[in-house]
Amino acid sequence: MKKIKLSVVPGDGIGNEVMPHALDILDVVGEIHGGLDFEYEHFEYGCDYYLKHGKMMADDGMERLAESDSILLGAVGDASKVPDHISLWGLLLKIRQEFELGINVRPAKVFKGIDSPLSDPAHFDLVIVRENSEGEYSSVGGRMYRGDDEIAIQNNVFSKRATKQAMEYAFKLSAGRSHHVTSATKSNGIFHAMPFWDEVFSETSAQYEGITTSQQHIDALAASLVTHPQRYDTIVASNLFGDILTDIGAAIMGSIGIAPSANLNLNGKFPSMFEPVHGSAPDIAGQGVANPIGQIWTVKMLLDHHGEEEMGSVLLDTLESVAAERILTPDVGGNATTDEVAGEVIKRLKR
Amino acid sequence: MKKIKLSVVPGDGIGNEVMPHALDILDVVGEIHGGLDFEYEHFEYGCDYYLKHGKMMADDGMERLAESDSILLGAVGDASKVPDHISLWGLLLKIRQEFELGINVRPAKVFKGIDSPLSDPAHFDLVIVRENSEGEYSSVGGRMYRGDDEIAIQNNVFSKRATKQAMEYAFKLSAGRSHHVTSATKSNGIFHAMPFWDEVFSETSAQYEGITTSQQHIDALAASLVTHPQRYDTIVASNLFGDILTDIGAAIMGSIGIAPSANLNLNGKFPSMFEPVHGSAPDIAGQGVANPIGQIWTVKMLLDHHGEEEMGSVLLDTLESVAAERILTPDVGGNATTDEVAGEVIKRLKR
Ligand SMILES: CC(C)[C@H](C(=O)O)[C@@H](O)C(=O)O
Ligand SMILES: CC(C)[C@H](C(=O)O)[C@@H](O)C(=O)O
Repeated sequence: MKKIKLSVVPGDGIGNEVMPHALDILDVVGEIHGGLDFEYEHFEYGCDYYLKHGKMMADDGMERLAESDSILLGAVGDASKVPDHISLWGLLLKIRQEFELGINVRPAKVFKGIDSPLSDPAHFDLVIVRENSEGEYSSVGGRMYRGDDEIAIQNNVFSKRATKQAMEYAFKLSAGRSHHVTSATKSNGIFHAMPFWDEVFSETSAQYEGITTSQQHIDALAASLVTHPQRYDTIVASNLFGDILTDIGAAIMGSIGIAPSANLNLNGKFPSMFEPVHGSAPDIAGQGVANPIGQIWTVKMLLDHHGEEEMGSVLLDTLESVAAERILTPDVGGNATTDEVAGEVIKRLKR
Repeated sequence: MKKIKLSVVPGDGIGNEVMPHALDILDVVGEIHGGLDFEYEHFEYGCDYYLKHGKMMADDGMERLAESDSILLGAVGDASKVPDHISLWGLLLKIRQEFELGINVRPAKVFKGIDSPLSDPAHFDLVIVRENSEGEYSSVGGRMYRGDDEIAIQNNVFSKRATKQAMEYAFKLSAGRSHHVTSATKSNGIFHAMPFWDEVFSETSAQYEGITTSQQHIDALAASLVTHPQRYDTIVASNLFGDILTDIGAAIMGSIGIAPSANLNLNGKFPSMFEPVHGSAPDIAGQGVANPIGQIWTVKMLLDHHGEEEMGSVLLDTLESVAAERILTPDVGGNATTDEVAGEVIKRLKR
């Protein structure tokens, strides 16, 4: 029996509504598989935890999370309770940085049964590899003076190691796909970091024969994902650019509520983390209408990561078959509840 | 006779193909108006100038440009000739920063006659006010070490003065529109600069009664411009965020080739600059198919700026009437040439 030990962090808002379904589905997957067993440790970290304890996680939180094989996360942040930069830097971004989750993989493709807002979504099937630990997300910097003279300085920090790691991952991933990597750059406007990014990209590209490349400025690329998404295979992007592009990827699929992601540790020192792209959506939390597809598709990425690609495919096919019959939440034009969508997935998996 | 003295900088690539039409149209507008005269001084600054002289503009270039009432620019940059960060920082970004063009105004709306890539573009009519002189566009920072240990540091610099100026401009602009300002932020991920941005936004908002506000993280906002553009009136954004959002704004209109912009100096010390959002597009330069609408709509913004709103409206209506009859370049699904589109605009203006 293969045992996978998961740290489960539902987090805030709708994270708490979609997570139980994800765990039910993992249990069903384990049963169907026969030789796979999931063990969960639950962590109540999030904004409510902060309101009680004055911190986003327990002092030994990172050590305890580190004991699992992988982390399954819901969503973090609720600005009505805790300022976002406190809640995110105290939990989500802390995990990404301290567990060296340098790679964030986020697919975007025409999802059967879900309408794209594009009039001609053609056929697109792309994946974005986002550098996930540094770049524009840094706490280096600060503020000076008060009042009219105030200045805020934010230091973006790009290292060769992390930049190169993200690019190499993208090239390898693309080798199993359509053999084309696009680099999201902005070397015309961002003076030091992006020319550096471009140099590392061309150096990396020279190592991978048979993979063609292109580069596009982030502004043009963001626009082009809307007008010509079918032109892309694998996109590699900095932390912030990847953040923006993956939300656009979710938008052209039809909803931010369906997009999944894998935050990967590549050095084997810490667990990887799996979370949907969507946030905690406090505006719809508690109504039972959160789209569970993002969290469930994320479970598929977790299965793939643990070598269970076959179960991963079954799960994604099942998800698409449910969507194709329009058993969907309101954000994607349906009138089903979270429970109904997830329940239908389980019912079909069991068949 | 009102005289407006313009510095004309066609720049690179298709800038040279669309600019002559813009000037012809200004002449026609002057004739129709009867009391308006444009005087041009031409500057050959750009990448070819760099190849000849080793710099993007003459040593006294800024002084000479400063002598005009406004600058009309085409497009700058051609990476096959000069690295982008050299060409842009030596001309376009130099003008924006040294002439204190702190405000970049870029409208996006359903453009009659041009198909949006959105299946239901509903009715959208928004304007993006971009801080245009600082933020993520700074040459502060640098690189250290060579090889595997290399690090690039890029300092984003946000001042109260420039941030506040952009926000106040947005609130005032919105007062003549639908009374709603949305702030593009990323205070959950960008630790120092964006919480500062949010504070200045709420401070500014307190000064403007009767204008409602919202804030959205840049990733969600980029996605939402694709899924729900009709929700926005006036958006205020940092330099980089505005750069990205305005390209998405152009994309949902149907083409980056039609979007205009005004780079405004508000302290009266230097001329303002007007340029289309599109770049120099070296890939299609010389084929006669560049879309002239972006440059012509930009002329409308220049007219508005000089108090000639009536002529500005006539010009935009004429542009839309030409588009409505599908006299369009290939990027927006037509088969007309640059000359044919611009020629038709002139013919109709003269009627
Ligand atoms: C050419 C480039 C430096 C410029 C920018 O990033 O501002 C362009 O994209 C724009 O939007 O005007
Ligand atoms: C919540 C936020 C800090 C996070 C990010 O910016 O990375 C989110 O948008 C994401 O994409 O995972």
